[in-house]
Amino acid sequence: MARYTEMTPDELAHERSIVADEYEEILARGLSLDMARGKPSAKQLDLSTPLLTELASASDCFSEDGTDCRNYGVIDGIPEAKRLMASLLDDKPETVIVFGNSSLTVMYDTIQRCMTYGCLGSTPWGTLDTVKFLCPVPGYDRHFAILEQFGIEMIPIPLLETGPDMDEVERIVADDASVKGIWCVPQYSNPSGITYADETVRRLAQMPCAASDFRIFWDNAYCVHDLYADPAMQDRVLDIGIACTEFETSDRYFKFASTSKITFPGAGIAAMAASRANIEETKKLVSTQMIGSDKLNQLRHARFLPDEAAIAQHMQKHADIIRPKFELVEQMLEEGLDDAHIATWTKPHGGYFISFDGLPNTAKRTVELARNAGVKLTGSGATWPYGNDPYDANIRIAPTMPPIEELAEALEVFVCCAKLAALEALER
Amino acid sequence: MARYTEMTPDELAHERSIVADEYEEILARGLSLDMARGKPSAKQLDLSTPLLTELASASDCFSEDGTDCRNYGVIDGIPEAKRLMASLLDDKPETVIVFGNSSLTVMYDTIQRCMTYGCLGSTPWGTLDTVKFLCPVPGYDRHFAILEQFGIEMIPIPLLETGPDMDEVERIVADDASVKGIWCVPQYSNPSGITYADETVRRLAQMPCAASDFRIFWDNAYCVHDLYADPAMQDRVLDIGIACTEFETSDRYFKFASTSKITFPGAGIAAMAASRANIEETKKLVSTQMIGSDKLNQLRHARFLPDEAAIAQHMQKHADIIRPKFELVEQMLEEGLDDAHIATWTKPHGGYFISFDGLPNTAKRTVELARNAGVKLTGSGATWPYGNDPYDANIRIAPTMPPIEELAEALEVFVCCAKLAALEALER
Repeated sequence: MARYTEMTPDELAHERSIVADEYEEILARGLSLDMARGKPSAKQLDLSTPLLTELASASDCFSEDGTDCRNYGVIDGIPEAKRLMASLLDDKPETVIVFGNSSLTVMYDTIQRCMTYGCLGSTPWGTLDTVKFLCPVPGYDRHFAILEQFGIEMIPIPLLETGPDMDEVERIVADDASVKGIWCVPQYSNPSGITYADETVRRLAQMPCAASDFRIFWDNAYCVHDLYADPAMQDRVLDIGIACTEFETSDRYFKFASTSKITFPGAGIAAMAASRANIEETKKLVSTQMIGSDKLNQLRHARFLPDEAAIAQHMQKHADIIRPKFELVEQMLEEGLDDAHIATWTKPHGGYFISFDGLPNTAKRTVELARNAGVKLTGSGATWPYGNDPYDANIRIAPTMPPIEELAEALEVFVCCAKLAALEALER
Repeated sequence: MARYTEMTPDELAHERSIVADEYEEILARGLSLDMARGKPSAKQLDLSTPLLTELASASDCFSEDGTDCRNYGVIDGIPEAKRLMASLLDDKPETVIVFGNSSLTVMYDTIQRCMTYGCLGSTPWGTLDTVKFLCPVPGYDRHFAILEQFGIEMIPIPLLETGPDMDEVERIVADDASVKGIWCVPQYSNPSGITYADETVRRLAQMPCAASDFRIFWDNAYCVHDLYADPAMQDRVLDIGIACTEFETSDRYFKFASTSKITFPGAGIAAMAASRANIEETKKLVSTQMIGSDKLNQLRHARFLPDEAAIAQHMQKHADIIRPKFELVEQMLEEGLDDAHIATWTKPHGGYFISFDGLPNTAKRTVELARNAGVKLTGSGATWPYGNDPYDANIRIAPTMPPIEELAEALEVFVCCAKLAALEALER
């Protein structure tokens, strides 16, 4: 099989008739498979079953400082949960606040506070004519949805192998005081899987910003989510807190993490870390919104994951389940698409996604063809602000949820749809 | 002992020396007692111990519709939890959203959404020059703190035996379009314990409002929190939803409730109910803030409290623990203060508080004297907007948390401090 881009019209037509036949055969199967979201599989959830019974009696419900976790109180979390989340956040327990079951909620609420109250005395963002955010692309659709709902203008920034294009970032933030923040998934990025280079982190910490209240939203969602046990195959991002302290910009960042993809996505715990000043202001402001997050669930988690060794051991069990799925996807994409030369895709060392770039103007069609064949993918465009991928090329592949047999079937469909969409585009 | 207000200066001085001696004796005891917050006691928390082990294995974690409650999803709650919360909210499951562990958070977030996005297409409140709220007093300090933080101006409204002074409410809302809402704790109100009369509820539903997006924030925190088993001693407020439907103002209310004082205050579930249009808008907006609340905790609660009979039975166990405390407070206030005629207090049929009104200009001093003697009370003024009780008379008594022996000791202190503060005021 030759490269599609080098085929004559006759060759393209011939190839398309072959692939269309394959697609017809797939349609006849009546599949119903879901690769849309980064959800752990049931097998992964089973790894955390002991969490359910960590607290079995009233006497189990006391934290190490004697707090009755059943009752009201403790705005920033019990000590053992702060330690656990500090370890995920590369931070100290005293500058951590433990929240409820969703880091998405913590991030939304943090932006809400910036909009309504400003940051450390700055003008509330919501009272300004224009507020803009830098959005490395491809990125996480739920990050973009928060900004869109608050009416914050999004500026796409190319995400390179080393992280956001820092020349572009530095140029924009130096000039425009209405640019108030940037979204970062710095390790095993969603969806590309890349990890920011140390130099990128340092430049983010050091760059002069026209807005004195510029904030880096550091969503370290995949901080311990390695696919490989070999340290040489594990990425580790430089901590933004350390970098900002070095350059005396320590109020510039908010860090976020959760146990959603460590224990139970629907019933984990989330946290933020920041400078002492940011944490004090946050604690003061959230104390009107809550009396304290679910401390029983904090205690369950701290008992189930008492130290970094326990976390690492637990995460390797996850890796053993999902690594074969990532490898299967890579293998099937390679076997199915390498010759045609119509796409590139990432080979991450961790995280939850493979980022797929097809020919321009083929992503929407690929997703549509797959949907019609019963395979649900993340919507095309989702990895761009406003759901608008100007190249219509990027697709996020989420391989963790389906059992591996179903994943193989879904990938077979995906490969066929990607080829068909490419052929259609080339024939136009 | 005569009425303090009828004493001569000499009699006052004599009485004060006696009470001051009592106070000195109390000081010497070196007490440390807490009646500050409406917290359940450890014995009450023990009633919900079975909740801890409702889910013990992976197979326990599926809701009745087959949802794996460990994983992501379900923005409005699992069916059985929606039924449970609908029963607390006098509503239908389809117009209920189940949230996390705090109705305070749900209320804060609801006001945040009104401020940022408006209601059903209205102008966002946060973009208006002035936003005002009606605040029945005495009321709940955390309600007032939310408004203060959002810069919403608070207008105190007298809370009568029948609920807010409706003549006053109707007059203000008819005229002033900047008045956007009212806080209501309609049953066993915090702190007075009164329950709104049906007529009050109907007038709230029917009254013409200058603001088309006026909202009643109906915090039914004590919906099933009776002190007595005898139905004749149980208050039941008319549902605001029914009243608003009757008068075709069904978008006017948001209802809130939680299991905080049913199961575990720190680890319960909360919910809101509203018209179909309000619920649809809320679901859409919160879907950027979260993927779903903790469904495992929802499932635990639904299994522990499967129907209204189970709730009623469980709440009677609470009542059996706290009723003697309320009765002890009433008895000690009566014995200690009736003759002096310096105060009135409420005798609620449910809820968590007794509202105490001393002579003008004595509440701050009473709380200060008690604090110095080691008894922590709710801060004076807390029951008024901005913490400012213009009469300096109202004190919220929260009798549920201390064991009954400690409560007796705390009340002895309280009575002594109230007398001393009254005598000091009368001698000025």
